[in-house]
Amino acid sequence: VTEDELIARIRRLATSRTRGLELGIGDDCAIFRPSAREELVFTTDLFLEDIHFRLAESDAAALGRRALARSLSDIAAMGARPRFFLFSLALSPRTDAGWVEKFYRGALALAKSVKVALAGGDLSHSGRVVCDVMVCGSVARGKALRRDGARPDDVIYVSGPLGGWQHRGEIEPRLELGRRLVGKATAAIDISDGLSTDLRRLCVASGVAAELDRPLPVVEGASLDEALHAGEDYELLYTAGRHVPGIPIGRIVRGRRGKITFMGLNVPPRGYDHLRHR
Amino acid sequence: VTEDELIARIRRLATSRTRGLELGIGDDCAIFRPSAREELVFTTDLFLEDIHFRLAESDAAALGRRALARSLSDIAAMGARPRFFLFSLALSPRTDAGWVEKFYRGALALAKSVKVALAGGDLSHSGRVVCDVMVCGSVARGKALRRDGARPDDVIYVSGPLGGWQHRGEIEPRLELGRRLVGKATAAIDISDGLSTDLRRLCVASGVAAELDRPLPVVEGASLDEALHAGEDYELLYTAGRHVPGIPIGRIVRGRRGKITFMGLNVPPRGYDHLRHR
Repeated sequence: VTEDELIARIRRLATSRTRGLELGIGDDCAIFRPSAREELVFTTDLFLEDIHFRLAESDAAALGRRALARSLSDIAAMGARPRFFLFSLALSPRTDAGWVEKFYRGALALAKSVKVALAGGDLSHSGRVVCDVMVCGSVARGKALRRDGARPDDVIYVSGPLGGWQHRGEIEPRLELGRRLVGKATAAIDISDGLSTDLRRLCVASGVAAELDRPLPVVEGASLDEALHAGEDYELLYTAGRHVPGIPIGRIVRGRRGKITFMGLNVPPRGYDHLRHR
Repeated sequence: VTEDELIARIRRLATSRTRGLELGIGDDCAIFRPSAREELVFTTDLFLEDIHFRLAESDAAALGRRALARSLSDIAAMGARPRFFLFSLALSPRTDAGWVEKFYRGALALAKSVKVALAGGDLSHSGRVVCDVMVCGSVARGKALRRDGARPDDVIYVSGPLGGWQHRGEIEPRLELGRRLVGKATAAIDISDGLSTDLRRLCVASGVAAELDRPLPVVEGASLDEALHAGEDYELLYTAGRHVPGIPIGRIVRGRRGKITFMGLNVPPRGYDHLRHR
């Protein structure tokens, strides 16, 4: 199989379409024609062998699905609808054309279910599998959920139990919930590096502090420590001044910017930090 | 240095702005508000240690510049103006925070000179340095230069001598030329995998054949074989039915789709193929 033949095969598998995508896979760039009413949001997430996953632990389709799901979680956190994505993939000596096709099939099955179109990407090779997924989403102008809108007395919510996806299996990006929160939540973020780290980011951006004064929902099999600090939850964390769907876990308070307490105790940010974990 | 501190430092370095970019680095997604008259183009390019570069061979700033330049070359090939980019980077155990800052400084100096804004990205770690650069460009609606518009009797041009950037030093993305070709060239592509491979791609997309019947411009120190087949040229290859700037190297003819001859001899595609080179 040559590179061009593999690209042609992927092109045939990519059946989802999205309004405005004039040209997808197969040119130097994809071409997208946005409407004047929409605002576009963009995210990109690396998914690296031996850092985010091990080749032996999952089948290729589950890995391809997870690569896309992680980026879709960021789109959910903005309250946006995913429109198209670019998929960069470097094969390793241990992944053949069959593995790559399964990897794409896994990603494209999820893509189809949430109606996001594969618009292009890059194909390369490396000692370890490298994947980077860029997703573009759209939302009505001025309506994107940002991190910096939390205000004192807002209630803090999470979309589900915490403790890491390892205890739960597949990542389910909270796209539907994210869209329902538009116009209601004051701030939102997805928990990719652990509650303690991501709540701190939201509070720093908003210039506020947080008190976690309710029992934390914990995934079966996970510890309270994992619920507070484990990365890769991919639940939404958001704040609102009125009742919204979700599990309330505390409230926003005035105080030292980014300070977080849990049942009155100080919580340092101990979530995932790529510079410390090298 | 923590991940969040490094991100804050990069944010301060990123001084270029672009109209429509409502929110850059520091949220789950960047937010971009397009105008109704523009069409957006998107490209992404992997730049991997020990595949595309070696750590020892260049300083960090030159590598950062090259990572962005490769993606900008795709924007040039569409005749678009670069607007913003997302930068995904995984550090290795051999790259410290100082290296990363220099890498970003190299990319951001080029970004400033071509007025493209850093809008976000991802930061991770890995055994080898991994970089993926997504660039969004804009062009007037319906005016993007595609690969599929070449017609029999069009003249084939290249923007400069060929043979690989190794013989030339830095990559200069042909952004100004690309924009001048809008409305004039019938098809365009950038030469990243070698003339023989990329001309074949243009001809396959356009359903035509090509005759290279003029002397090829060759970079000083490169062989004719390198000019025909070496990757990483990053010159533009384009066709036009009338006189346009550039170096004419042949013409488009009717014939077997994708067939290329040089001085009457058949040229097989022997440029870079990531699946064959693994």
